[in-house]
Amino acid sequence: MTPALPNTVQIREVGPRDGFQNEPETIPTADKIALIDRLARTGIKRIELTSFVRADVIPQLSDAVAVLEGVDIPDGVSRSVLIPNERGFDNALPHRELFEEIGVFCSASETHNHKNVNRTIDESLAGIDALVPRALEAGLEVEAVIATSFGCPYEGHVDPEKVFGIVRRLIDAGAREVGFGDTTGMANPVQVAAFFGEAIARFGDEVLLTAHFHNTRGQGLANAVAALQAGCTSFESSFGELGGCPVPAGATGNIATEDLVSMLHEMGVQTGVDLPAVLDAARAVAEVLGRPLGSHTLVAGPVVWG
Amino acid sequence: MTPALPNTVQIREVGPRDGFQNEPETIPTADKIALIDRLARTGIKRIELTSFVRADVIPQLSDAVAVLEGVDIPDGVSRSVLIPNERGFDNALPHRELFEEIGVFCSASETHNHKNVNRTIDESLAGIDALVPRALEAGLEVEAVIATSFGCPYEGHVDPEKVFGIVRRLIDAGAREVGFGDTTGMANPVQVAAFFGEAIARFGDEVLLTAHFHNTRGQGLANAVAALQAGCTSFESSFGELGGCPVPAGATGNIATEDLVSMLHEMGVQTGVDLPAVLDAARAVAEVLGRPLGSHTLVAGPVVWG
Repeated sequence: MTPALPNTVQIREVGPRDGFQNEPETIPTADKIALIDRLARTGIKRIELTSFVRADVIPQLSDAVAVLEGVDIPDGVSRSVLIPNERGFDNALPHRELFEEIGVFCSASETHNHKNVNRTIDESLAGIDALVPRALEAGLEVEAVIATSFGCPYEGHVDPEKVFGIVRRLIDAGAREVGFGDTTGMANPVQVAAFFGEAIARFGDEVLLTAHFHNTRGQGLANAVAALQAGCTSFESSFGELGGCPVPAGATGNIATEDLVSMLHEMGVQTGVDLPAVLDAARAVAEVLGRPLGSHTLVAGPVVWG
Repeated sequence: MTPALPNTVQIREVGPRDGFQNEPETIPTADKIALIDRLARTGIKRIELTSFVRADVIPQLSDAVAVLEGVDIPDGVSRSVLIPNERGFDNALPHRELFEEIGVFCSASETHNHKNVNRTIDESLAGIDALVPRALEAGLEVEAVIATSFGCPYEGHVDPEKVFGIVRRLIDAGAREVGFGDTTGMANPVQVAAFFGEAIARFGDEVLLTAHFHNTRGQGLANAVAALQAGCTSFESSFGELGGCPVPAGATGNIATEDLVSMLHEMGVQTGVDLPAVLDAARAVAEVLGRPLGSHTLVAGPVVWG
């Protein structure tokens, strides 16, 4: 027996942040703006546009304000920015009218958190504790993402209880949504099913729980189905299968938005997203980058049932 | 609730046939032999080595006899050859001592069958009817694969009842195993779960039922999990994600053996296959072909839990 599936899921596009920050060559601001404007007209209702990260750490996103000022996002599409720490939030707040959501994050493993942001997990959480009330006061939605939720490339196994302990702290801090990142693609469908089953049972009534899978070992969509079967209704993905993680080097892309949408629609799960429009956007970013992307549906095209 | 999974599955490697026949440049025979010998030492117990197809149709496999004579396959590893028709079987039979299994096939859609082998399905089945008793008499195992079982790139939907009708005829013809090919990657996990659930209920006591998925739209492993959840214990895959189909042009690769093995082992499902050894073989074929392959684990490496 296949478990019953949700009828509808929501997809947040993270390519303009997670994808663009991982390109070795910085994408010109005008190209970013054109690509984001295209994504914003695909039916996707939430887009992570950029990050207020230090320009010397991630120069690829040093044009955050120019991107936010340049894009033309239709009503009903929520603009999100990633905030790495309190200073990032201080820099973002003067531009409050340019976005509706912020994302904050920490890792579930000390080593990854240290290599990623040079803090302990407790230090990251203290930063989030300080930052979230200010964001809520400013009327912003807050998603908190827990990186390496399913495994750490440095430490190996990550105890789900440790992750759930962080979830509790993030909820107490005021987060309205908690995302679980399989940052380096270590998760498998059995693990994901058990993890999301438990997470939804414990926290599903309090916050939106979001799945963020990478396709590092080709299992990204299999993991998405496992999360879906467990009741997850919120997914993050990246057009063209762009993305990765600053550490370790070589961490590969998010699941491709177009592959996820194609699969979900074929399964009878609605997303509100127009697949051909996403494919157009993926084609456009492939042209900008001038290289083949990891996306499959971009090459094969949608399924045609005749 | 996640359905209980089989503890163990078998994997048949089809790269030397399905993969090599789809390479635009014919792979030198000596390279094929070296790659097959490597695959035969990975723990994989069944390998499709080549096809007795007409050299003018698929010149990439015109060295079938030389490959069969050249390989050095350990005891316990079954050598299989694909047989397109009675004439192919006539050509293969004199080399009977060089293989233990044959594969025969037809499509579930008339248009695909016509474009692939220039016959109606009934003509293909009549050929199989004539051929299988001779193969059984010669002591060969017979697998019959039904291409386009989950959808046809020309006709669209394929009625499962039509596929199951073909299964019945193949069983009656003497086939000991029936494979279902998602030849152009149109299947989705919901469809696969329903299909394999029904197929196993109807035919699981009579024959081995095998899943053959392509990763055309990135859903290959998700479909494999769906089949596994439905009780399927036999899978075909191709090292390096090689493969495709002669028609239509551009049909992309099988699921990668190394991605499938990595996922199954991570899920706690045993295969008897040594993942590092398969990765070595995939690396070797990538070197021979001189191009990046679709395989993910080949790039990322196995999951390391520290």
